[in-house]
Amino acid sequence: MDTFGRHLLVEFHGCDRKILNDEKRISALLHRAVLAAKATPVGEVFHRFSPQGVSGVVVIEESHLSIHTWPEDGYAAVDFYTCGECFPDAASEVMKDGLGAESVESMLVHRGVAGEGDSMQVRRHRRVRAEEPAAE
Amino acid sequence: MDTFGRHLLVEFHGCDRKILNDEKRISALLHRAVLAAKATPVGEVFHRFSPQGVSGVVVIEESHLSIHTWPEDGYAAVDFYTCGECFPDAASEVMKDGLGAESVESMLVHRGVAGEGDSMQVRRHRRVRAEEPAAE
Repeated sequence: MDTFGRHLLVEFHGCDRKILNDEKRISALLHRAVLAAKATPVGEVFHRFSPQGVSGVVVIEESHLSIHTWPEDGYAAVDFYTCGECFPDAASEVMKDGLGAESVESMLVHRGVAGEGDSMQVRRHRRVRAEEPAAE
Repeated sequence: MDTFGRHLLVEFHGCDRKILNDEKRISALLHRAVLAAKATPVGEVFHRFSPQGVSGVVVIEESHLSIHTWPEDGYAAVDFYTCGECFPDAASEVMKDGLGAESVESMLVHRGVAGEGDSMQVRRHRRVRAEEPAAE
């Protein structure tokens, strides 16, 4: 079975609230992240909420990148779901810098795992403040 | 902070391969799932891959529903990310029936959890074959 995927769930806190509410900047940032992941975009949908907040998804050959923002809380929830030769951690770094996040919490879930065990497996869960080095 | 979200990751195995490769049916099914979750769609993007497979996302007021299918393996990876008053489990049931899945594995991750602890928390992880009752 060749369905193996890496699903990186990321929580960005302490972000720039103005950026979080700017659909164009969020869209541009997501596309930079797609590029950093060396993924290939095939479609997208973005939506700006009233009074605030942006949701966006870029569907890629390798699955999808999504974002939901809560400007009032300086918070964004991002998903990097990739299959094949991709670099979701590089994409996450681009998002962190672009959002000006003070802290990042990420969880890596392997999906479509072949064999008798679980099809989904949590492989990593870590929390990093901007000034700290990453710790497993 | 009102960023709390329920992110239900679901793996459907043993699905109807013809349905998994039919973009129109996958799109219709995802919209039925959105309806079952009592969510409000605000945008969508679907893509059919060559030689096979479908990716699709419906962005909803309450976040998003996504699907990636591998017809060759009878497998689909689905995400129901909802905030507020929604029913992701009902949406998952609709998907299970619509895909004719033989087994379902689901993981519920709470996101945007306020307080000093982790912002993401795995709250449930279960695997169910179609003929078995759900067990926590």
